[in-house]
Amino acid sequence: MRITVLAGGVGAARFLQGLRTAYPEAQITVIGNTADDIWLHGLKVCPDLDTVMYTLGGGIDAGRGWGRDDETYSILEELRAYDVPPLWFTLGDRDVATHLVRTQLLNAGFGLDQVTAALCKRWQPGVTLLPMSNDRVETHVVVDTPEGRSAIHFQQWWVQYRAELPALDFRFVGMEQAQPGPGVVEAIGDADVVVLPPSNPVVSIGPILSVQGIRDAVASGPAPVVGVSGIVGGRPVKGMADKCLAAIGVQADSAAVSAHYGARQLGGLLDGWVYESGDPAPDAALASLATSTLMHDAHSTAELARETIGLVT
Amino acid sequence: MRITVLAGGVGAARFLQGLRTAYPEAQITVIGNTADDIWLHGLKVCPDLDTVMYTLGGGIDAGRGWGRDDETYSILEELRAYDVPPLWFTLGDRDVATHLVRTQLLNAGFGLDQVTAALCKRWQPGVTLLPMSNDRVETHVVVDTPEGRSAIHFQQWWVQYRAELPALDFRFVGMEQAQPGPGVVEAIGDADVVVLPPSNPVVSIGPILSVQGIRDAVASGPAPVVGVSGIVGGRPVKGMADKCLAAIGVQADSAAVSAHYGARQLGGLLDGWVYESGDPAPDAALASLATSTLMHDAHSTAELARETIGLVT
Repeated sequence: MRITVLAGGVGAARFLQGLRTAYPEAQITVIGNTADDIWLHGLKVCPDLDTVMYTLGGGIDAGRGWGRDDETYSILEELRAYDVPPLWFTLGDRDVATHLVRTQLLNAGFGLDQVTAALCKRWQPGVTLLPMSNDRVETHVVVDTPEGRSAIHFQQWWVQYRAELPALDFRFVGMEQAQPGPGVVEAIGDADVVVLPPSNPVVSIGPILSVQGIRDAVASGPAPVVGVSGIVGGRPVKGMADKCLAAIGVQADSAAVSAHYGARQLGGLLDGWVYESGDPAPDAALASLATSTLMHDAHSTAELARETIGLVT
Repeated sequence: MRITVLAGGVGAARFLQGLRTAYPEAQITVIGNTADDIWLHGLKVCPDLDTVMYTLGGGIDAGRGWGRDDETYSILEELRAYDVPPLWFTLGDRDVATHLVRTQLLNAGFGLDQVTAALCKRWQPGVTLLPMSNDRVETHVVVDTPEGRSAIHFQQWWVQYRAELPALDFRFVGMEQAQPGPGVVEAIGDADVVVLPPSNPVVSIGPILSVQGIRDAVASGPAPVVGVSGIVGGRPVKGMADKCLAAIGVQADSAAVSAHYGARQLGGLLDGWVYESGDPAPDAALASLATSTLMHDAHSTAELARETIGLVT
C-alpha cells in the first residue's frame, strides 16, 4: 500500500510513528511543511522536516516532542554572550550540526529535496520525506504591536510571543512563485490513500495545500483522503492551533476544522474524518469515525493510524 | 608607548599576556596571521586571531593553549554521525558560535577587520587586534603522498598529519592579490617598537611579512624591531616550527632564525634579538639578549616582555 501524508511537525511525526508500526509493509511518503523554515545566524532551519526526521529516526527529544535528544546549548550561550539576536529560538548544538550540513549542501547548489534525502541517509526514518517545495516560502504573521502593525516571522510569533499576540492574518511569503518539490504531485497521484494527520490546519497543512498544484492533486486524485482532528474538546491537543484558527475565522472545534478542509462531495478535500468521541460530528457527506484520538503511547498511536486508514480503504 | 606585534597563535598570545602585564599603559596593536584561516562546513575559521582573542579575553582552554574553555563537542559528534568530512579539525561548539557570528557578518559584507573588532567587543582583549589582510590568503603545503604530489591546506597538514608528512614547500595562496588590512601599515609606521614574538617564523610571521607592503613597512619604519626566539636548544618550545624551517632550508636554531629575519644593518628586519641562554648567539650586528625565554607563568612571561622591549628602547 502506498500512503502519502501531508505533515507538519510534532502531531504528524507522532501519527507517522503509529502508521509505520501499523503498516510495516506500506510505502509511506511524507510531504513536509517548509513554510515555518527560517534562516537563523546564517543557517537554514527546517523545524517540521527535522521533527519528522528526528522522531522517526530515533533522535528526538521525546519529552518536548521537538529538538534533539541528549542536546547541549553551548552555542546559544555564546550567541547570548556575543549579544547576537535573535536569541528567542532554542538552537541546540546537535541541531545546529544538522543545519550546518543542510546549509552547506544548499549553498553547494543542491535542492532541499536532495539535501533532505542526504540527511535521511543517516536517520533512516523508514518513510520518504519530501519537502512541499524547494522554493523559499515563509509564513509571516500580521500583528499589532505598540509600535504599530507589522508582519513577523511565524517562528517569532510562535516561539518568542507564544502566539499570545493576536494574529490578524497569515501570509505565506513566496508562495506565489513556489513550485511543488520534486515527486510531491506524483506521490499524491500515485497514492492508495492520502492522510491529513492531526497537524495544524492553518500553518502546517495550510501552506502545503497552498503550493500551486498540490490542493488540486489532492482534490482530484484517485486516492481517498482522510483527515484526523487535532482538536479535542474544543482545544488543540498540542500547540496553539486555536489561535491560528481564530485568525482565519474558523472555530476551534473538530467539526469546524473538517468543514474547513471540506467534504470532497461538496467540493472539498476529504472522504473521511476521524475525531474524538464526544466531539461534534462532521458533515454527513463524509465517512467519519468517532474514536480515541489521543496518541498516549505506541499502541494507541498505531491503533489510531489503523482506524484512520481503515475508514477509507 | 605604542607597541605593534606581529602575531601567530599560541606563542604570541602568551607573550602578549606578558606584554600587557608589563606595559599596562601601552597601546598594543596586534597584527594577526590569517593565512592559516580555513573554511570548514561553511564557516570561516581564523585560528590565530581566535587564539589571541580568547587568550587575552580570558576564554582560552589554558591547558591546550587553543580553543575555548568549558568546551563541548556535540557538533563534531553529529558531523561524524552524518559522515560529513573533514572530521580531523577539532571544532568545539562554543568555538562554532564565534565562527557563526563571523561568517554571518562577512556574508553581510563587513571586512574581516570590522568583524574581528565586533568579536573583540565581547572579549575585550586589551589590545587592538588587526587581521594582516582582509583578503583571503591560505597557506598550502606541498607534500608527497602515495597518490602523488599534492598541495593540502596547512591545517590539514598540521592537524591531520601532525606535520609528519615532509613539507616540500609552503604556498601562500592568494598572497599576490592580498592587501594589508586597514590600519596595518599605519600601526607599524606609528609604533615606538615592533615585536616579532616567539611565533612560527615560516607559517605565522612569514605570511604576515609576505603581504604586499608589510615587510617594507617594518624594514623601513622608524621603530626599532625586536624578535624573540621560539627555538630553544634546537627545538621549538611549542608547535612544529622545526618541520617548517626544514622545508625552507633554515636550521632549527635560534641564531639561524635570527639570520632568517636578518639584521636591519645588513638589509634585514631586526634591531634586537632575544634568545635562550646557552643557545648560539646571533650576528654581532644585532643588539641581543641571552635570557630565559620560557614563559612558565605570568611572572616569567611579563619579565620576558619587559626584557624584550627594554633591549631596543
